[in-house]
This record gives sequence, structure tokens and C-alpha cells, in this order.
Amino acid sequence: MKRIKAVVQYKGTNYSGWQKQKNANSIQAEIENAIFLALNEKVEIVGSGRTDAGVHAMAQVFHFDTNTRISATKLYAVINKFLPTDIKILSSEEVDNNFNARFSAKQKTYNYYFYCSEIELPLFKDWSAKIRTDFDFDKALLACKYFLGKHDFSAFCSANSQTENMEREIYKISLQNFGNNLFCLSVTGNGFLYNMVRIIAGTIIEVGYGKISPESINKIILSKNRKNAGRTAQACGLFLKNVDYNV
Amino acid sequence: MKRIKAVVQYKGTNYSGWQKQKNANSIQAEIENAIFLALNEKVEIVGSGRTDAGVHAMAQVFHFDTNTRISATKLYAVINKFLPTDIKILSSEEVDNNFNARFSAKQKTYNYYFYCSEIELPLFKDWSAKIRTDFDFDKALLACKYFLGKHDFSAFCSANSQTENMEREIYKISLQNFGNNLFCLSVTGNGFLYNMVRIIAGTIIEVGYGKISPESINKIILSKNRKNAGRTAQACGLFLKNVDYNV
Repeated sequence: MKRIKAVVQYKGTNYSGWQKQKNANSIQAEIENAIFLALNEKVEIVGSGRTDAGVHAMAQVFHFDTNTRISATKLYAVINKFLPTDIKILSSEEVDNNFNARFSAKQKTYNYYFYCSEIELPLFKDWSAKIRTDFDFDKALLACKYFLGKHDFSAFCSANSQTENMEREIYKISLQNFGNNLFCLSVTGNGFLYNMVRIIAGTIIEVGYGKISPESINKIILSKNRKNAGRTAQACGLFLKNVDYNV
Repeated sequence: MKRIKAVVQYKGTNYSGWQKQKNANSIQAEIENAIFLALNEKVEIVGSGRTDAGVHAMAQVFHFDTNTRISATKLYAVINKFLPTDIKILSSEEVDNNFNARFSAKQKTYNYYFYCSEIELPLFKDWSAKIRTDFDFDKALLACKYFLGKHDFSAFCSANSQTENMEREIYKISLQNFGNNLFCLSVTGNGFLYNMVRIIAGTIIEVGYGKISPESINKIILSKNRKNAGRTAQACGLFLKNVDYNV
């Protein structure tokens, strides 16, 4: 029995999210099914975390245990043959048995792409969220720094979460302007609560609309009340960019 | 009767190309159908040029004549209601009756996106072409300048073309390296022969493989023989970026 760490890229548009569910097609189920077809083994894979319906991953990480004799670094190619075109494993390697894709993760980076337009743009809609045209980038930029550091992020967690410890640390946050009204919010932290990145994105976007002042972000965090933060931004703009295990 | 100039964006993945055809879904047919549903008028639209099956457009231009009383600058929104999500009109305006989307065009810019990978990447495959991993960017870069200027581009035109004048002028050509093995070739010219951008891209990629030397591009052009140029690069990486009428 050996433990395999694998990195997978997926376009989440046509899936109900990472986690296996009854009567819904999930990334996890597609991968477990492909492993079964490739290796004739029923395995349960463990992801670094869940991504919601419609959320994408440049490089999500998962682990699983296998008895296969196929060399670990060639496994990804064998499994890929049984995966749909919107899910592909980028690499695979053997790791120590105490490696755990979820609990060994040190930090994660998410990117959130959005654009200002009256029209839902055909070439943008699958991977970025359409927002109002009165968005002020410079105002929104002022909001970012307030998220840095260790905070109780209860105000930035969807109500139906069952997590107990609401403290997370954000190491890096940046907002990029690519021109042509396209923007990207990038957030790196030790972990994220349910919908946390999308609520941070939604709040920063509302700062750009002039609805929330940059300075009030601190008060919103301290209030620990979800109602004070902005809306949860659309799933289609969110990418799990990478998961780091050694930092 | 007034003449309307419109700019349209589309994701070409699910279409057989711009031009109307029997038993195939084309961008032109979708737009003419939407105009019929919106304005109750049967019109024939004239594009700045055709794009092939699977080719995208950031901003394709077309014109048509209409008797509608709806103001020209609001037409795009009315027609968009009847268009699928992968085709949307970005703007519309009234123009002089002698404006012709095809014959008034002064120059066009195409972008060709491609990436080096063993794996067809889920988040890249719809809008960029996968190429071999032994691609040498610096070599490929040396090939670009030979395409500049006025040439008979017969060697870079697919055989089934019926064009008589094969002379075209390329004003600008650039090859960008975005990192992560993603590249973009951008070409601006007064016009392009059938498959010309894709054959130029395919040839430059083969220079990057070391199969064609940068210096031999000149000889290939002078030979006027399609067989001497590289392969036609895949359609999925090609974008009509914009069409200019005043330069």
C-alpha cells in the first residue's frame, strides 16, 4: 500500500462542486470513478478542501492509498484516460503515509476574477463574474489591507457552516487591474471558512460601488456578523490557484 | 432604411464558423435569427470576414440595413435578448450607407494563444492550443520579423481558397510569453487569406520545435508553395481581436 499525492486541474462549470453527493456529479466522484476504471480499486480520495458548485481549480491537491504496481509518477496519465476533458490530473507522486492533503496543507491561494459590463460577455462568463459598471477600482483597492492578519472571520462565513474555530490568518491579498475592466483579487491564507473568499470578494466589490467604506471593514470583522459583510460573489469567478505544503 | 454597424463577441467552440451553411449552426445564422425575432425583419448581415469553425471573436464587426424605429444605439440590447449566451452584441450605431463591414475594413488584428503541455488542460483547452513541450520560445521569436511587410502569401493560404490577389501586408507581429508555458502570437494586417493566421502560427511553432529555421521563412514566402510552410494550427487558439475602419 502506498500513498499518492496528486494535483488536479478542473473547470467547475458543469459540476456540483468537489464533494461527492447523491444525485449530483461532483469532481470527487469523477476522479474516484476514473481511479476505479484505471486501477480496478475502490478508493476514497481526500482533497485539500472542498470547492463549491461552479468553482474552478488551477491546482487542487488530493491524496489516496493504492496497491497498484504502476509507478507513482506515471499514475496521473493512466487515470487521465478515464477522466472527462474538464478534469485532468497534472502530476502524481508517492508521499509519506502521514501526508494528508487536508491536514498537511500550510496555505492556499485563491484568485477571484471579475469584470465590469452591462453585457454578460461570451468569452468571459465561464471564468469571471460580471459586476456593475460603477465599480471604482481605486476605492476597492483601499479595502484590501484590512483583511490582512489573524482575525475571527465569522462575518465572512456563510451561515450554514459548522466550523467551530473561526480564526484564520490572511498572509497576502492583492487586487489587480488588467485593463478592459477586468480585475483579479488574489488571497493567500492558512485556511478559509465556508464561502469566505467569495464573501471577501463581494465585500470589496461593494466598497468599489461606494456602498461600504474601506475603513468600515475593520468594524465588519469585529462584529462577527455575516449580515454586515457584502454579498457572496458568484462562484464562476473563483479559482483555487494552489495549495502549499512546505512554506 | 438605416444602416447599422454592430460589434459582436463570440465563443466559437460550438459553431461551424461565421458563415451560414445548410445543416450547421453558424454565428451569422444565430444573429440573423435573433434580429428576426427582435425586429420582425429578415435581414442579411455582412461580416468583416469569415471566421472558421471553433474560432472566437473578441470584437467582430458586421453591418445590416433595417427599417426599425428602435434607436440604433439601443438595438444591441434588444437583439441580445434573442442570442445564446456564447454570442452577444457589444454595441450598435447608425452609419453612413456607404459603410461596408467587409470592404471598409482597413486592418484586422488576430491573437493566437497556445501552451506547452503533455496534458490537454481543462482551463485552457477552450481558448488555446496545446503544443509540444520542446517548444523554444526564443527561437520562435526570431521567425516573426520575416512576416512583416507586403508579400504574396500563397504559401500561407489553404489550398481550397479561390482568392485571386494573394498579396497582403502585415503591419505588426509579436510573440508574448506569459509564463507558465502560455504564449500569444498577435498579428495585425490589412487582410488575411484563408487560414493565413493559423498557418503563420503553425510555422512559427515549428520554428520553436527546431523543425524550420527562422531564416528560411523568407524562402518559404518566396516559394509561394503551401507545402513548404508549417501545419495549420488548431482553430481553438484563434481570436479575431478587432477590426479597424479608421487608421
